Amino acid sequence: MVGGGVIGLTVAWRAAEAGWRVTVHDPAADLSGPTAAAAWVAGGMLTPITEGATAAEEAGYGLGVASLRRFPEFAAELERASRLPSGLRPEGSLAVGLTADDVTELRLFADRLAHLGRRCTVLGPAQCRALEPMLSARVFGGVEIPGDLAVDNRALLGALGEACRRRGVAMDSRAVTELAELTADQVVLAAGAWSSALVPGLPVRPVKGEILRLRRSPGTPPPTSRTIRAAVPGGHVYLVPRHDGVVVGATQQDVGFDTEVTAGSVARLLADALTVMPELGGYAMAEAGAGLRPMTPDGLPLLGRLNDRVVLAVGHGRNGLLLAPITADLVLGALLAAEPVLAGVDIALVRPNRFSEIAANARIAT
Amino acid sequence: MVGGGVIGLTVAWRAAEAGWRVTVHDPAADLSGPTAAAAWVAGGMLTPITEGATAAEEAGYGLGVASLRRFPEFAAELERASRLPSGLRPEGSLAVGLTADDVTELRLFADRLAHLGRRCTVLGPAQCRALEPMLSARVFGGVEIPGDLAVDNRALLGALGEACRRRGVAMDSRAVTELAELTADQVVLAAGAWSSALVPGLPVRPVKGEILRLRRSPGTPPPTSRTIRAAVPGGHVYLVPRHDGVVVGATQQDVGFDTEVTAGSVARLLADALTVMPELGGYAMAEAGAGLRPMTPDGLPLLGRLNDRVVLAVGHGRNGLLLAPITADLVLGALLAAEPVLAGVDIALVRPNRFSEIAANARIAT
Repeated sequence: MVGGGVIGLTVAWRAAEAGWRVTVHDPAADLSGPTAAAAWVAGGMLTPITEGATAAEEAGYGLGVASLRRFPEFAAELERASRLPSGLRPEGSLAVGLTADDVTELRLFADRLAHLGRRCTVLGPAQCRALEPMLSARVFGGVEIPGDLAVDNRALLGALGEACRRRGVAMDSRAVTELAELTADQVVLAAGAWSSALVPGLPVRPVKGEILRLRRSPGTPPPTSRTIRAAVPGGHVYLVPRHDGVVVGATQQDVGFDTEVTAGSVARLLADALTVMPELGGYAMAEAGAGLRPMTPDGLPLLGRLNDRVVLAVGHGRNGLLLAPITADLVLGALLAAEPVLAGVDIALVRPNRFSEIAANARIAT
Repeated sequence: MVGGGVIGLTVAWRAAEAGWRVTVHDPAADLSGPTAAAAWVAGGMLTPITEGATAAEEAGYGLGVASLRRFPEFAAELERASRLPSGLRPEGSLAVGLTADDVTELRLFADRLAHLGRRCTVLGPAQCRALEPMLSARVFGGVEIPGDLAVDNRALLGALGEACRRRGVAMDSRAVTELAELTADQVVLAAGAWSSALVPGLPVRPVKGEILRLRRSPGTPPPTSRTIRAAVPGGHVYLVPRHDGVVVGATQQDVGFDTEVTAGSVARLLADALTVMPELGGYAMAEAGAGLRPMTPDGLPLLGRLNDRVVLAVGHGRNGLLLAPITADLVLGALLAAEPVLAGVDIALVRPNRFSEIAANARIAT
């Protein structure tokens, strides 16, 4: 296993459970603190579709739903295996709008959710504030989506690391500079944004995401129980609850491997968060961080066998946490067969060679 | 010497130079990193008066000017003694306004400065931006004050610590819980906001100040050369240059010994800073910190002899860095005499017993 982020650890734990002898290669292989993994700074919102979703993101809806359905049992098994909390929160999410236009958008989004068969409820401002009292009086309406989940990303990573240890997964912190140097029969590549350094031409590149962690101070109201999403100028802000505060996310910046948190990003995230929930101003500014999301051209991961020896589990973009359970199922299938089958999931969408085929077809056409 | 902040270290160094055998008692006595001292998170603007000064603050003008005049020679001697940079910056400050009302206020402030005999120049918007190109196009006018100074607070503390070491000042990191336990012939109390724990009834209390440190990123313009001050809703924001960025300050919060940096304060400081200089948005958010300014009821320090054994050097509020040189002169005088005399300074303003006298007089009057 090359990579000890949420994908690498999930696959390693599941593979070890299935009887494989597994070594995780990651520079942060002690797994006890901050890592370079994108999941370390994630918000932890687990939703297969948001009101801001692009058409490309909607293409992954089926995959996301299939993984979301697996999550409760996945988390329960992880807690049994690790004897640690998984960090899963079942309260769902509440999308809110602060203008009439935004609330109209939310109603269209509710129609779309209903069409997809998901439960949701359109709410007026008073109903929104009854559910989440910290919301601003400026909130104009919202949509509650009870089926969404959220997870404390660091609790989950901690539990995964412990589950791996208990299953005898070996950890190796030496840098892997090429896959050929590994002696394993089978290699799973899950090195996130760094994966293309190990498989030249792999269409995965880093997209920086910045988040803030705000911690409740004495005398301030408790954090929300639901994940809150709100339309703001230039995008959406989300507030994902933790037991002791909220995570505010997230920016998206196409700036290579730079992980600096800029003053402008912090200013925007804070201004947006305080617009939605003014009382968060009394929370402590606990952390500002940046991670590198491994992004593919179509926003969907590359999952499956690359060659006789290498299986890919890369390119999860912003959905690494959500897609971890189904990724493990797919990769375990791929370790045993060339073309795994998974009920209800269109595997073709995530086939590792889809971009080279597109490129080849384009060449034939011209 | 009880306290190893800017006052404690300055007095310790100067006293050791004058032949005293000195021990500094401070929990952070290794002096090589962050300390609880208010000076550790200071902006470092050295000005005896600002456009937002209250009447009480203006009363300390003479003291501030006397210390400001000492600063260049003080810094030069410190550099010779420590062989380290003192962090002094001679470029002065530029006060700017973003509205016609603010610029009118600045013109009145310029009149006041002229009346006090200080050099200053009223500037139009283009002139302001010619001096400091990062200023927003919204700047409506300003006043340049070339006689102000600024200092890199951490460089200064580092140089003071090294100067003390080279002069043989001893460091003791054990907590001092009462002055009686010290064996020295003479005790100088310079424990900032914590001083009243050692002298019951001392009218010094903590006022929290929060600052941000923004660091220049590749591809962004260099920091200003002058300290920039601007009127903003609810007060003033200041931007003090460092070689690699700027310090943005500062809030004032009367919340006891709490040093948590709140999300609301960071939001406000960033919003204000980016209003004055939008391009700072590309700088990295390097640090958000809080310090406890030791404040007295009239905003002026308590300097001089308390009794046969104890000399006070406390209560410098927001002006500890500015007043360090003159404080050392006064304390060295007080160590040798009951009532030191200092040319051009009204010692009565800072007499340690002025509040108990006021209280006694009030009792007599009633």
